[in-house]
Amino acid sequence: MAQGGDAMGTIYLNGYFMPAEQAKIPVMDRGFLFGDGVYEVIPVFGGFCFRLAEHLERLDYSLREARITTSMSHAQWQQIFERLIELHGGGDQSLYLQITRGVCAEREQRFSPDGKPTIFAMSRPRGAARVLPDAVACITLEDIRWLRCDIKTTSLLGNVLMSQMAVEAGADEAILTRDGLVWEGASSNVFVVVGEVLYTAPKGRYILGGITRDLVVELARQNGVDCREQALPLHAVAGADEIWLSSSTRDLTPVTQLNGRPVGRGAPGPMLQSVWGWYRNFRQQLMR
Amino acid sequence: MAQGGDAMGTIYLNGYFMPAEQAKIPVMDRGFLFGDGVYEVIPVFGGFCFRLAEHLERLDYSLREARITTSMSHAQWQQIFERLIELHGGGDQSLYLQITRGVCAEREQRFSPDGKPTIFAMSRPRGAARVLPDAVACITLEDIRWLRCDIKTTSLLGNVLMSQMAVEAGADEAILTRDGLVWEGASSNVFVVVGEVLYTAPKGRYILGGITRDLVVELARQNGVDCREQALPLHAVAGADEIWLSSSTRDLTPVTQLNGRPVGRGAPGPMLQSVWGWYRNFRQQLMR
Repeated sequence: MAQGGDAMGTIYLNGYFMPAEQAKIPVMDRGFLFGDGVYEVIPVFGGFCFRLAEHLERLDYSLREARITTSMSHAQWQQIFERLIELHGGGDQSLYLQITRGVCAEREQRFSPDGKPTIFAMSRPRGAARVLPDAVACITLEDIRWLRCDIKTTSLLGNVLMSQMAVEAGADEAILTRDGLVWEGASSNVFVVVGEVLYTAPKGRYILGGITRDLVVELARQNGVDCREQALPLHAVAGADEIWLSSSTRDLTPVTQLNGRPVGRGAPGPMLQSVWGWYRNFRQQLMR
Repeated sequence: MAQGGDAMGTIYLNGYFMPAEQAKIPVMDRGFLFGDGVYEVIPVFGGFCFRLAEHLERLDYSLREARITTSMSHAQWQQIFERLIELHGGGDQSLYLQITRGVCAEREQRFSPDGKPTIFAMSRPRGAARVLPDAVACITLEDIRWLRCDIKTTSLLGNVLMSQMAVEAGADEAILTRDGLVWEGASSNVFVVVGEVLYTAPKGRYILGGITRDLVVELARQNGVDCREQALPLHAVAGADEIWLSSSTRDLTPVTQLNGRPVGRGAPGPMLQSVWGWYRNFRQQLMR
């Protein structure tokens, strides 16, 4: 089995580990034709999957809601992940798992419930854990995505276009509004601090319930923070004391500029620093 | 070059014609990872593309709105199509063209504007033209798709799930409502006849402006029909005299049952028969 540099490019596809450049799928894969798939991104710290059970539960939810059936058990997913982590030398990584509805004979939207799904997994290196994540700038955009944002689907053109608009506006992320309320980012959840209260949008069809989001809510409440799952109007967010993004890739990221204006005092705020401390402690205790 | 049976499976991928079973794309293609692509379905009658200029104009629109750049000219698209039509023996076919944003090095939503797109095209046999299309049953569903339905994207999980719900309800197509109004089907446009007036939803972010839809509007008006581009409330559609679907694949299809109840008299209506006659004449004149 390849080691080191070579192994960085080893991926998993339908039962086999192989070099990434050999990993190809038929053009008739419904993932290619229809974006007909779901995915997960799982952070790896110190060689271990972080919040694996929660990620696999969310995967099961996405699969069920997208009506994709696989015979894989949680233990089998874990075996694939452990092998990928090992092949990439342990440490901090970012696992990616994608499951599509598989190859079809004819291009038709309707599907056969007993198709064989395509399973693809890879791991990428992850930047070292920082003392405090770098602050970022965001813009706000009207959310153009579908009404089942709770499904972690690969049908992502809406997210792609909004992420790109953010980049081209000199920002790191697009914070999305629907009906005048702030729901989440194009690839993150959003937290807002107003006074002593911490807000984040409630789960439902308008957001992808992040695993990091859930942990932040849990830790904040455990530590006595008044954390409310409620979507705020854009003007309240624009005038907030603190805004943060959360995601498995970004951890917790302070937003210090929104639509070109400073958020609060224009620097990471005290609530973020508290929650970030609790979050890091939680992670370190798991890794001991 | 393969002929006859063998050639049925010949497809085009990135500059080459090859057997479909050899046509594979890298897992890092953004079409696979993100549904980051657009497509067209072009009907072929008697060996010729029908309304080719209109389909290529719509393709250009989808590419522009999805911010995908290709150096292909209309003449080059036409060359690919003509070769595929020839390889498949001429006659009536259905061409499929898909363009994705191409292969990426890292899985990130943001993209480089100068990436090299992936181009895939295939042709499938098409059923012989019928005297009058078979009548179908439809259900209505709340439209869960994104707010840029005017882009013909491969991010189609919403369409896939709604099409499947229709099939499982014993229907042929899902007719979609948003804010209480009827906009289009999961893979078709919708026409509604109330008295002497023909309605279809206006173009905009809620529908994919069909090439067949546009032709029907044009032919109806040329023949003195009062055709209004206006979305009707669901109750008005449910009580309509006639409902039809239009698409490049379906031509014009009468809907004689909606949510289990007969539409009008439960049979294809007189307005459909007139428009279908005009439509067939138009097509036959082109083919002469």
